[in-house]
Amino acid sequence: MNTLRFGIAGLGNMGSIHARAICGGKIPRARLAAVSDPAADLSGYAPDAKVFPSTEEMIRSGEIDAILIATPHFSHTTIGIDALEQGLHVLVEKPISVHKADAERLIAAHTNPRQIFGALFNQRTDPHYTKIRDLIQTGELGEIRRVTWLITNWFRSQAYYNSSGWRATWSGEGGGVLLNQCPHHLDLFQWLFGMPSKVRAHCQFARFHDIEVEDDVTAFCEYPNGMTGTIITSTGEAPGTNRLEIAAERGRLVLEDEKISWKRNDIPTSEFCRTSSSGYATPTTCNIEIPIQGSGEQHNGILNNFVSAVLDGTPLIAPAEEGRHSVELANAMLMSTFLEKRIELPLDGAAYEALLQKKIATSKGNEKLARIPFSPKLTDKFGRPLDKHPSYSQP
Amino acid sequence: MNTLRFGIAGLGNMGSIHARAICGGKIPRARLAAVSDPAADLSGYAPDAKVFPSTEEMIRSGEIDAILIATPHFSHTTIGIDALEQGLHVLVEKPISVHKADAERLIAAHTNPRQIFGALFNQRTDPHYTKIRDLIQTGELGEIRRVTWLITNWFRSQAYYNSSGWRATWSGEGGGVLLNQCPHHLDLFQWLFGMPSKVRAHCQFARFHDIEVEDDVTAFCEYPNGMTGTIITSTGEAPGTNRLEIAAERGRLVLEDEKISWKRNDIPTSEFCRTSSSGYATPTTCNIEIPIQGSGEQHNGILNNFVSAVLDGTPLIAPAEEGRHSVELANAMLMSTFLEKRIELPLDGAAYEALLQKKIATSKGNEKLARIPFSPKLTDKFGRPLDKHPSYSQP
Repeated sequence: MNTLRFGIAGLGNMGSIHARAICGGKIPRARLAAVSDPAADLSGYAPDAKVFPSTEEMIRSGEIDAILIATPHFSHTTIGIDALEQGLHVLVEKPISVHKADAERLIAAHTNPRQIFGALFNQRTDPHYTKIRDLIQTGELGEIRRVTWLITNWFRSQAYYNSSGWRATWSGEGGGVLLNQCPHHLDLFQWLFGMPSKVRAHCQFARFHDIEVEDDVTAFCEYPNGMTGTIITSTGEAPGTNRLEIAAERGRLVLEDEKISWKRNDIPTSEFCRTSSSGYATPTTCNIEIPIQGSGEQHNGILNNFVSAVLDGTPLIAPAEEGRHSVELANAMLMSTFLEKRIELPLDGAAYEALLQKKIATSKGNEKLARIPFSPKLTDKFGRPLDKHPSYSQP
Repeated sequence: MNTLRFGIAGLGNMGSIHARAICGGKIPRARLAAVSDPAADLSGYAPDAKVFPSTEEMIRSGEIDAILIATPHFSHTTIGIDALEQGLHVLVEKPISVHKADAERLIAAHTNPRQIFGALFNQRTDPHYTKIRDLIQTGELGEIRRVTWLITNWFRSQAYYNSSGWRATWSGEGGGVLLNQCPHHLDLFQWLFGMPSKVRAHCQFARFHDIEVEDDVTAFCEYPNGMTGTIITSTGEAPGTNRLEIAAERGRLVLEDEKISWKRNDIPTSEFCRTSSSGYATPTTCNIEIPIQGSGEQHNGILNNFVSAVLDGTPLIAPAEEGRHSVELANAMLMSTFLEKRIELPLDGAAYEALLQKKIATSKGNEKLARIPFSPKLTDKFGRPLDKHPSYSQP
């Protein structure tokens, strides 16, 4: 095989971007063979791609080798499982699922190692983050003591939330900023620092918008070695901040405004603390500015890596299995708020699913969503027919 | 009266600084009349000041009009009550007391409004903070939505903690970074933003040092209007950070590296959120840099203001009564950690005192402290004779 035939499920915001990238030659060894979206209009850029009225038919058509799932969140699991069972390679948008139990079901369906199963965590290609990851993994920074990440540059207006009935509802998205905007950073957080052992969070629901779900979050993470992590995110602040601060044995590193600034301690902090005869002195430091060009290949980088994984056996940048962690972090933050307590990880996925089901049962989104056309044969992991769910259009 | 005769209780780190300021002419209308400290050596700069072996005698000597209390924390309450009852003006170092119940006892002893009772919150004279307070109080910033304050530039070595038996013990200080280093910022926090209604904190004890008390804190504050506040402080990080970020209706203000940077929204965030027809746009902003010279008069400013309050009736910059808030915040953060739950304010002072007493009962500091000379007649607010407490020397 020299060319990978892609089918894209869902031609909304992200699906369209991927379709145009493939058709525009940005993914050299990929071809857009089909899409499944009742509202698809490919006339402008992909007149040869087949349009299937349902994802199920596209999966079984024999026209595609790989499916890119860019439908609303809840259907990622259902479509992903179906596609894996039918032998396709699968590339799934974030979040891989809405909740941990679903993520585990999806991952469990990936039994054939020759099927490539990736997730669209495009920010893993950003050289700022790959550089920081190198500094951590090579031990250059030394043991990490504290991480504080302000990610409040996700401002969305009320008009954004009004643009579609499924948005920011429990039944449509299964959460707010943690499930829609922030999964990238939750993924990067665990990719850089590993998973915490405990999570305590304070989510505010509908604080800034007329929605059902969380649009403001402050979360505190504990690690077995004492490391602490604070994540603050919101879609209600403007202008927002994206500032990652890492306090480590070898000093303090800050990523902000695309710049990495590292004040490097000449002596590790704990050694200085033990050996200094002065009560107030601090280790001498040097200032290291790390030049970074651009923000990497982003979505196209992930798509090319996926194609290369299928055709050449290249390791994936973002295996879908690793997508379970950002889902678990988001779930733990919501669960901590629902139950008003600290959550120990690993999270009890069934308990979280039960809590989420209660939210969905009273979700205003249910009636809005019923109006959206659907492939009726698939059911979601709550056992509801998918025609109660939005699986296709992201207007 | 044209000159205020000061007596300083405790000639340790801070007491010596205040004594030298007075004797050096920095407080024009004040005279250092006496000190109480068995280890006092004033020969170099204040040969005329009387040295009393006990604070009790100094208070009753008739030689002083005002007492400046710069002894270790626990004795602030006892000495302060004694001095107020004897009719002196009182200026007390931070924290005014170690815990809320003691602070209330101390404040209750201030019954005569003609006695001036101030606290040494010198950072209230810093023009960075007075400017930010102006921007808040005049409504320039608009309603505040989130505050994140990283205050980790309090690094102390193990040698610092080893320098005295009372340091960083439950019996000697009644806490760690929250009671010793951070009270200034806790005071500024409530001075700028008011008191929260709920506090959830995660304190780590002896994380970075061989001590009994907290040297690392992440605290989350909730306000009735939804405002959130996160405070992170530590004596174990180097190089540290002091960065205050305020997200408000009128944009984002950051104080860091002595600079105030304000990205001001042309339209308030919530109005833009409601009225924008774009889903992703943010309000246009202008960048405002606010030039600030120096860091204000600090300790000498507070001393001069105190003298002026006594002699001229000038309002105090930091009335001691307001010192109860920083104590309550510190107590709430510790209590939240002890009980592993969110604490509602106002805090139950008696309940916190009982928790603290348990810590003190098993404190390693007790035996170390017994060796420090004391005025035996005064008892502390736990009913223990003060000869179990350090009241004088801060070596």
